[in-house]
Amino acid sequence: VAIARRAGPAGSLQIVGLGPGASTQRTPQASTAVRQAEVVVGLDAYIEQSSDLLGPSQEVRRFPIGAEVERARVALDLAADGRRVALVCSGDAGVYAMASPTFELLEEDRGRRYGDVEVSVVPGVTASLAAAALLGAPLGHDFLTVSLSDLLTPWDLIEARLQAAAETDLVVVIYNPRSRARTWQLEGADTPVGIVGDAARDGQRVVVTTLGQLDCTAVNMTTCVVIGSSTTRVEGGRMVTPRGYAT
Amino acid sequence: VAIARRAGPAGSLQIVGLGPGASTQRTPQASTAVRQAEVVVGLDAYIEQSSDLLGPSQEVRRFPIGAEVERARVALDLAADGRRVALVCSGDAGVYAMASPTFELLEEDRGRRYGDVEVSVVPGVTASLAAAALLGAPLGHDFLTVSLSDLLTPWDLIEARLQAAAETDLVVVIYNPRSRARTWQLEGADTPVGIVGDAARDGQRVVVTTLGQLDCTAVNMTTCVVIGSSTTRVEGGRMVTPRGYAT
Repeated sequence: VAIARRAGPAGSLQIVGLGPGASTQRTPQASTAVRQAEVVVGLDAYIEQSSDLLGPSQEVRRFPIGAEVERARVALDLAADGRRVALVCSGDAGVYAMASPTFELLEEDRGRRYGDVEVSVVPGVTASLAAAALLGAPLGHDFLTVSLSDLLTPWDLIEARLQAAAETDLVVVIYNPRSRARTWQLEGADTPVGIVGDAARDGQRVVVTTLGQLDCTAVNMTTCVVIGSSTTRVEGGRMVTPRGYAT
Repeated sequence: VAIARRAGPAGSLQIVGLGPGASTQRTPQASTAVRQAEVVVGLDAYIEQSSDLLGPSQEVRRFPIGAEVERARVALDLAADGRRVALVCSGDAGVYAMASPTFELLEEDRGRRYGDVEVSVVPGVTASLAAAALLGAPLGHDFLTVSLSDLLTPWDLIEARLQAAAETDLVVVIYNPRSRARTWQLEGADTPVGIVGDAARDGQRVVVTTLGQLDCTAVNMTTCVVIGSSTTRVEGGRMVTPRGYAT
């Protein structure tokens, strides 16, 4: 059985991590990918973040928040039609971003429509690294990266991960903290906590506090929260996790 | 009791993440920090990685591998003497790199010598993100970042972290895997594993295999290893972790 396929050469799709916000934290590889794209696809906010790269000959497809799968499908469809496409994400392209839903669509497709599309990923500075740099060195030792969004993950599993991190003395980086802001108050009132909002963007906020004094109303979806381990110290407003235990 | 302090204005120290290797994956902020430094301090390999940025008027202090604390001390001393210093690291400056030992020295100093030095951190694309981009999208959901180096961390604790990750179905990213290469063969022979050596450098190697078929001799200290979760799939040579469980 022959499978219908559009005529013409297939295009390409680069899934691009723009970094946390400022263009100075965006890699040249990411900038080049956006500049050279015929079509740029992304959330409104990430199109804005790319605006210094966009020229009049480029087509732009803006999306409202949500709709990850639809965005990925539009980007793949455009590439299947022979276009050179950049799908832009904030931070890194693979951490709670578009690489994963795009490859899931590719897998479902089984080569029917997207088989000839060349797909690649351009990494970027993810929010946790930008936040950590502003806080000092909270990620100086092993850490868990976890999203508190329970839209697609059972809350019990998220809790088990936080619990396991506490039991094995890991630093924890939390993405999407608002979803369950009130429930992630783990034990250890004196544990240092760093909160960074809009890292490398207008309105950047950096707060170092403790679990006991944490004001959850300061936390929203553009916030990255870093919870220290037993070794994390705060000195001069900086949060520092030593690189080991034997020092 | 007056504390002796050198005369003259204190300088600055930027701890700079150069990204994984290629200059196209180095942020403009990192490049500017190195270009504008009067003195550049770093491991031989990271000075090489900065060579396209260095001019004849810049002083360069090269170090052999190891000696993190000495490197940090030299960088801080130079800044305390009024110099503008860049301390360069591969990947991100805060993940198993120089930010943490530098801030530890600052803390020990208690303002005696380094009190007026302005210290900041420039984040970068860490090895795990560069590796993940080459593998597909293995970090599409929560993950543990862990170093297998037991120089400063009890091996029992490292094992407990790996065990906790396996029990809570986390993806695991391993830095410095060689130290105990034979011992981290966890259960689950079919679990996908990605191995990336020298990401974005000459000699880059990308292998997707399984825990059961893993050849530990392919792993060394410039390798980043990504072990999948129960949901991670391999398709067309790509390793993809879906962004949730409910799809």
